[in-house]
Amino acid sequence: MVQSGMIFFHNDYNKGAHPEILRALENTNTESYTGYGLDTWCRKGAQEIQKALGSGDAAIHFLTGGTQVNYTLIAAALRPFQSVIAADCSHINGHETGAVENTGHKILAYGNKDGKLTAEAVEAAAAAYAGSRTQEHVTQPKLVFLSFPSELGTVYSKSELEAIRRVCDSYRLFLYIDGARLGYGLAAGHGDVTLQDIFRCADAFTIGGTKCGALFGEALVLKHPALKENFRSYMKQNGAMLAKGWLLGLQFYTLFRGGLYFSITKNAVAQAMRIRDAFRAKGIPLQPDSPTNQQFAILTKEQADALAEKYTFEYEGDMGGGRQCVRFCTSWSTTDEEVSALVADIAGL
Amino acid sequence: MVQSGMIFFHNDYNKGAHPEILRALENTNTESYTGYGLDTWCRKGAQEIQKALGSGDAAIHFLTGGTQVNYTLIAAALRPFQSVIAADCSHINGHETGAVENTGHKILAYGNKDGKLTAEAVEAAAAAYAGSRTQEHVTQPKLVFLSFPSELGTVYSKSELEAIRRVCDSYRLFLYIDGARLGYGLAAGHGDVTLQDIFRCADAFTIGGTKCGALFGEALVLKHPALKENFRSYMKQNGAMLAKGWLLGLQFYTLFRGGLYFSITKNAVAQAMRIRDAFRAKGIPLQPDSPTNQQFAILTKEQADALAEKYTFEYEGDMGGGRQCVRFCTSWSTTDEEVSALVADIAGL
Amino acid sequence: MVQSGMIFFHNDYNKGAHPEILRALENTNTESYTGYGLDTWCRKGAQEIQKALGSGDAAIHFLTGGTQVNYTLIAAALRPFQSVIAADCSHINGHETGAVENTGHKILAYGNKDGKLTAEAVEAAAAAYAGSRTQEHVTQPKLVFLSFPSELGTVYSKSELEAIRRVCDSYRLFLYIDGARLGYGLAAGHGDVTLQDIFRCADAFTIGGTKCGALFGEALVLKHPALKENFRSYMKQNGAMLAKGWLLGLQFYTLFRGGLYFSITKNAVAQAMRIRDAFRAKGIPLQPDSPTNQQFAILTKEQADALAEKYTFEYEGDMGGGRQCVRFCTSWSTTDEEVSALVADIAGL
Amino acid sequence: MVQSGMIFFHNDYNKGAHPEILRALENTNTESYTGYGLDTWCRKGAQEIQKALGSGDAAIHFLTGGTQVNYTLIAAALRPFQSVIAADCSHINGHETGAVENTGHKILAYGNKDGKLTAEAVEAAAAAYAGSRTQEHVTQPKLVFLSFPSELGTVYSKSELEAIRRVCDSYRLFLYIDGARLGYGLAAGHGDVTLQDIFRCADAFTIGGTKCGALFGEALVLKHPALKENFRSYMKQNGAMLAKGWLLGLQFYTLFRGGLYFSITKNAVAQAMRIRDAFRAKGIPLQPDSPTNQQFAILTKEQADALAEKYTFEYEGDMGGGRQCVRFCTSWSTTDEEVSALVADIAGL
Repeated sequence: MVQSGMIFFHNDYNKGAHPEILRALENTNTESYTGYGLDTWCRKGAQEIQKALGSGDAAIHFLTGGTQVNYTLIAAALRPFQSVIAADCSHINGHETGAVENTGHKILAYGNKDGKLTAEAVEAAAAAYAGSRTQEHVTQPKLVFLSFPSELGTVYSKSELEAIRRVCDSYRLFLYIDGARLGYGLAAGHGDVTLQDIFRCADAFTIGGTKCGALFGEALVLKHPALKENFRSYMKQNGAMLAKGWLLGLQFYTLFRGGLYFSITKNAVAQAMRIRDAFRAKGIPLQPDSPTNQQFAILTKEQADALAEKYTFEYEGDMGGGRQCVRFCTSWSTTDEEVSALVADIAGL
Repeated sequence: MVQSGMIFFHNDYNKGAHPEILRALENTNTESYTGYGLDTWCRKGAQEIQKALGSGDAAIHFLTGGTQVNYTLIAAALRPFQSVIAADCSHINGHETGAVENTGHKILAYGNKDGKLTAEAVEAAAAAYAGSRTQEHVTQPKLVFLSFPSELGTVYSKSELEAIRRVCDSYRLFLYIDGARLGYGLAAGHGDVTLQDIFRCADAFTIGGTKCGALFGEALVLKHPALKENFRSYMKQNGAMLAKGWLLGLQFYTLFRGGLYFSITKNAVAQAMRIRDAFRAKGIPLQPDSPTNQQFAILTKEQADALAEKYTFEYEGDMGGGRQCVRFCTSWSTTDEEVSALVADIAGL
Repeated sequence: MVQSGMIFFHNDYNKGAHPEILRALENTNTESYTGYGLDTWCRKGAQEIQKALGSGDAAIHFLTGGTQVNYTLIAAALRPFQSVIAADCSHINGHETGAVENTGHKILAYGNKDGKLTAEAVEAAAAAYAGSRTQEHVTQPKLVFLSFPSELGTVYSKSELEAIRRVCDSYRLFLYIDGARLGYGLAAGHGDVTLQDIFRCADAFTIGGTKCGALFGEALVLKHPALKENFRSYMKQNGAMLAKGWLLGLQFYTLFRGGLYFSITKNAVAQAMRIRDAFRAKGIPLQPDSPTNQQFAILTKEQADALAEKYTFEYEGDMGGGRQCVRFCTSWSTTDEEVSALVADIAGL
Repeated sequence: MVQSGMIFFHNDYNKGAHPEILRALENTNTESYTGYGLDTWCRKGAQEIQKALGSGDAAIHFLTGGTQVNYTLIAAALRPFQSVIAADCSHINGHETGAVENTGHKILAYGNKDGKLTAEAVEAAAAAYAGSRTQEHVTQPKLVFLSFPSELGTVYSKSELEAIRRVCDSYRLFLYIDGARLGYGLAAGHGDVTLQDIFRCADAFTIGGTKCGALFGEALVLKHPALKENFRSYMKQNGAMLAKGWLLGLQFYTLFRGGLYFSITKNAVAQAMRIRDAFRAKGIPLQPDSPTNQQFAILTKEQADALAEKYTFEYEGDMGGGRQCVRFCTSWSTTDEEVSALVADIAGL
């Protein structure tokens, strides 16, 4: 459990919402709206997102959580004999209690490169099926699942994304990008991928709200016409259509109207870079090298214990030799002061 | 779409939340919490509910929506060859896009009596299976689904509930009660069912928040030991575990701590009774006779058009002879003034 | 259990296979074939069926059983939010242990007319969905399931079939016909439906082998292009692709090559008509009036007991007043002598 | 397609049935039986298997195919949040079109050792779950899937099986053994595992008929009480209950009554050993070293082409350097003469 008096770096969803979000909820609290996402705010929220995408050619839906949006989209996209290509470390493969398989679909898990799926792995999977003389004995890979940023905080370069897109085009695969931390990924230091690139390359992707300043909620952007069809039916069937849908639309309107989504995640990444630099300066290894808000440091037990007195962070695994991998996570709510304290304490380890 | 300047009776989830809920969210917005429902507020919220139940022997979980909680509970309760007994008009049978079937389970729909499933129907279904010589060719009825109040606003009497419980005991069936509008049901005029009765008779039931003053969220009360096992795994698998779980726990804590849940729903029912009396006084038929916050009136087209100028309400169906069934729904936010206006206009029809 | 010394009318699958089937199996037993239905006999069997259909424009697959072929076809045809329209007495609704729901699909059950679904019911279901303002809250009816003959032995007339086809065309529904007893249906006394009519009206249908002279097996005829796609993948996924597929193809080749399928089922129906006439002559009610190999008689207990001494038949249900409905079923193996004995005993009741 | 005039080693299911099986089908063809496996032959077949097991404490069911029995058993054994531990090369993971995932369950695939899953891998999977602080985010491994012999023809030793059993006991996992080629596995050269050992170690396993002399069919042996419950309901629901069930029971009765199952598979393995020795004598590598009826040889293209003129065999994969892996498979129908011809031709390569 989280203790008071600590400074919190254990994840990016441990606090409520950006104050503007709460204010928006208050300001509209006594208004009456149509239910199930057919309200003004969902329309306005979608419009703001479409402006940011530079295109009105996208269906935007608002769902409450990441696992929910992932499996609902996949259930809507695939026929029963079709499967998903994903990195072995992907969230759907290891942290969603088999939600995708529960909808009937196999995940073909491929080894990752710093958390990322490679175009080569996608091509290998697709080509193996295409070339099989006994196709009916295996599932048909039909959807590529990426996380941007990846579960290890890394981001795909524009050329990596485009290479995967080309494979998807060759083999008629859907490309779906889980953007639970999209804001942080787009703010990545040397990243060259823009929101427009994501929209151009993906058939569908999410814009995470829960971890990026909203109280809760994920926006799902559907570009491929086949994925747009009847999607609200899939939402309702999967318990993913909030009765008071405007609560979600309003939040995304607030985040996107003036660029708040981008400014708060940019700050979080800047703070994460300060932490990264502090670890580097101390000679503490970071693995992998993450340009986003999640920093994975390899600490000795003594170092971890020392930092654990003032800071919360997440234990990720034993690295042998008495060392452990831990995650420090900044967020939209992380302050300069909080990071300055941590930086100083890292320096003093 | 909902128009401004109207008075809203179209449903009980068209406004945000009771002011105390919003205040609680504000007051805790900068606090940091453990994720996924393992936080202080979920614990406190559960404790308040347990106090109201008069028993600590219940597992309490918080989920985001009604369809979600219904199908997740059913998926957790049943084996693949088992089915649900429900009224034909039940929400799971007709308004959740086949969510229960999507988890693999058949719903055995039986005719309703004023919206309610009868003990006789449950007994007939269970006895038919028990007595079948070819059981393996049919599904095994294993869970009884009730709504309290029913989809038509009616409530089960204590003796009706107990009769169904006895059948469930005889045939080892789970009894699950959908309490999306539980507060309104418990406030029913001549109703003799208490929250403790619900808890005593049911193996699991929900306490609806979305329609009863919360911003969103349903509390699920699990009493039967078999249903408690691994329920969090089912929640996660079905996208029903909110990352910021405390948002739900906090709301239910706020609603239950001082009895707010009961007082606001009681007022809503009192307001609904004023509407009922106005229709009765005017000789306008109500069908069925509902003692809760939903009032179904049979109006002529002229009457409906006249009321539609100032009030929103829901069209339910054509009754023949130029008459239609419409629903007027009060809620936790309905005011004396709003109802007084309606009552006057009904009188003037 | 079935006793020796009896004459068997309890069902049409209580004996092995027509002698020609066994001979064909023997004659090919030492030959070697490619597996999984990619063999000579499956090709030849399909060709014979295509000849009978008068069209090569159909994909023919061979599966082992009726429940299997029903749910596999439905799983292949529907998206998760889509449902099946069927008669309440249909096999998939009441005698397949929820196999269709187990694949995730709701069955919308409508009242039957002498075992048959009406075009009016189909139209009502489809129109209700088409006209719904809240489509996403309900399943989309997408496939109509008929049995020919029906579970009560009755057959659709050509105009009834065509009326249903027209509704399917209007609403873009698939029409699937379960022909587990197709041979008996086509041989119906005053029936005006030919195999070509079935093929013309249906998007997919089965030609039952198990009950019509084969050792086991059902041929599935797929006409609609969308249903043909990847069907072998669905077969394999659902355990419906027999390793030694030629065993099935060979049987259907044998049944169709020289018209054996039609002659043996025609004889069975002729024998059933003798039984029907005997009951009629005796004033024993038949319900409904069945022109096929299943005869449902309403007997007194004394009559049933008397016949049960020499004949097997199936108890269908209590009719009140000490009467019961029982089924006498002829088959491809029923002989003149067996029926003559029964006819005499009915006359002597 | 298979060509005439060849000698067939491409698989062990390319011919009909052992002559005694066909004779049994003929001898009973005009008898009448109760349907759905509730007949004399299913009872007798089960009794013969129980005799061979040395125990009456097993429920025996007869199903038509391997994929079908695998996924039906798994669907019956697991709750939605539970998963299967299997080798990456296991049949359910790579050759059944995602049938297990289609029932909603994840397969946790672990690296194999000569085709076999190790006790260490099983322990690692189970321990990781047991020790997880966030169990609800991952699936619970609950069933271990083994093939005996493995997909690569190798067999588990008694100590290997017992080690896996111990892990299953420690973590309360089901152990299910796919015995599609069980007869060949039990006849393995230096194998020390008996049918009784399989029965002792497994909670459930199959005795393959399709590949071991039957026309078609697999016997499923259920030992664990939880797996016995309602299994016939799962069979029916999954299209795995043959209407003329006696066809299966009769075949297994014929195979087990006098030990035919064991003698014909023993001969097949002896013939396979002659092929193995011939390859060895020629210096042609076999990979892995298989003591059963499947022999995997690494041939040059010239060698493969030369043998392909007279023999059918299966291409398994490219091994680089112009070499390919091919499979020669003997079966219950393989003769001395066929193998002598092959042995001579291998020697002459």
